[in-house]
Amino acid sequence: MHQLRCEARTIAFVPTMGYLHEGHLSLMRLGREQADILVVSIYVNPAQFAPGEDFEAYPRDMQRDLDLATSVGTDIVFTPDDDMMYAEGFQTYVHPERLGKGLCGISRPIFFRGVATVVTKLFNIVRPDIAIFGEKDYQQLVIIRRLVADFNFGIEIVAGPTVREADGLAMSSRNAYLHDDQRRAALSLSQALQQSQALVNSGERDAGKIIAAATRHITSFDQTTVDYIVIVDPETLEDLTLVDRPARMALAVKVGSTRLIDNMVLGN
Amino acid sequence: MHQLRCEARTIAFVPTMGYLHEGHLSLMRLGREQADILVVSIYVNPAQFAPGEDFEAYPRDMQRDLDLATSVGTDIVFTPDDDMMYAEGFQTYVHPERLGKGLCGISRPIFFRGVATVVTKLFNIVRPDIAIFGEKDYQQLVIIRRLVADFNFGIEIVAGPTVREADGLAMSSRNAYLHDDQRRAALSLSQALQQSQALVNSGERDAGKIIAAATRHITSFDQTTVDYIVIVDPETLEDLTLVDRPARMALAVKVGSTRLIDNMVLGN
Repeated sequence: MHQLRCEARTIAFVPTMGYLHEGHLSLMRLGREQADILVVSIYVNPAQFAPGEDFEAYPRDMQRDLDLATSVGTDIVFTPDDDMMYAEGFQTYVHPERLGKGLCGISRPIFFRGVATVVTKLFNIVRPDIAIFGEKDYQQLVIIRRLVADFNFGIEIVAGPTVREADGLAMSSRNAYLHDDQRRAALSLSQALQQSQALVNSGERDAGKIIAAATRHITSFDQTTVDYIVIVDPETLEDLTLVDRPARMALAVKVGSTRLIDNMVLGN
Repeated sequence: MHQLRCEARTIAFVPTMGYLHEGHLSLMRLGREQADILVVSIYVNPAQFAPGEDFEAYPRDMQRDLDLATSVGTDIVFTPDDDMMYAEGFQTYVHPERLGKGLCGISRPIFFRGVATVVTKLFNIVRPDIAIFGEKDYQQLVIIRRLVADFNFGIEIVAGPTVREADGLAMSSRNAYLHDDQRRAALSLSQALQQSQALVNSGERDAGKIIAAATRHITSFDQTTVDYIVIVDPETLEDLTLVDRPARMALAVKVGSTRLIDNMVLGN
């Protein structure tokens, strides 16, 4: 890819764990528009799964993924294996520190270490000018922006909006785990976010009250267990008590044994 | 530097903390020989000093350093400041894990985190083809090799041999701290290493006995306090009990309040 760069061609990069859906494809289309060369990686990164999480079960379909990536104009699909990415003796990790400790970092303490490490590796392999990440994984997006600044990567990070099913469910490869009744309960996440925005629109500013209402809505569905519901500063991810400035509402909920996340701007 | 790279010119990089001595210059000459462009950085990295260590006292002489770097053919001297390297909100660190926990990592637990982090940043800024590190900082050299492999930097790491004063003292910017009597006591480090090699030459294989003899020699000098003396595998840095294969002997000793390190191959 050295040669491509020297011909002044720009490289956009979309890292994925595969089992591609419209959310991934929308990121690829963004990359396709903004650079000459579009590189997509497909790699289920073991370093971001803790023992007992769904690394083995994570859905995979490489042939379908290759077809989908090609269909949106991907030039290069990078599909490394574990021997290449985590050879014997591997032991150097990227720690995002404070930004990685709250939200998903509480129930998944090694998750963002794994994400930041593999993204560092992929950035060094692909050397993109632009990398595109989905807002669906909002905490990840904030951590990657910080990583790029802190490590002087010189890569522009572009955020792609969350793509939703017609009924509002945020697209996720893990939606494949949901049974029919769980699929209905999973709607409670985006509904709670929309209802929270409606509360803000009607003048509510108390983050605690908004969170309590969202919690009530979600737990009114069977099989739901709230991991967290927060309203945070969009950059520092620190809790806000009042929605009187730009805010992000984010939540993680288990539906059955499937852990889902979603988030939304909370504007006023 | 993008343009230089695209003209197929290779870049060698020597990161330093300045107060340059013949050891640094020997690394620069190695870089000068092996690449078209030689980049040297001069930056006293605060992230590798713990509170109470000598960050403030660390010797600095920028004008002399610039003259010396230029005298060996350096093309670019990079002298960042703290605001550039650790801007407000900085919080992403590289952890070398196991290799960073022994030897100097015991008394300096954040040291290699700081080194690995700043080297990651400098590598991303300079984007060298080759980087040169001194064997004097042997644990650092091993950790950087691991970092480059683990993070897919694609940089060749070249080791430069330790440069010594005529009497054997390994060159170090910190030698400037030593008073006359301490300068004599500091000789005990290289003497202990040479005596250990002589023991191995005479047939001794028991690492414990060799270390005990070295400890006796060093502590026979006034003002010396041994931090560690080890005989380790040159790649894993794990303790060896027998010198029956390639080995590295490494030690750290305080002379007065100045902490000095040295190391040597232990061959048989």
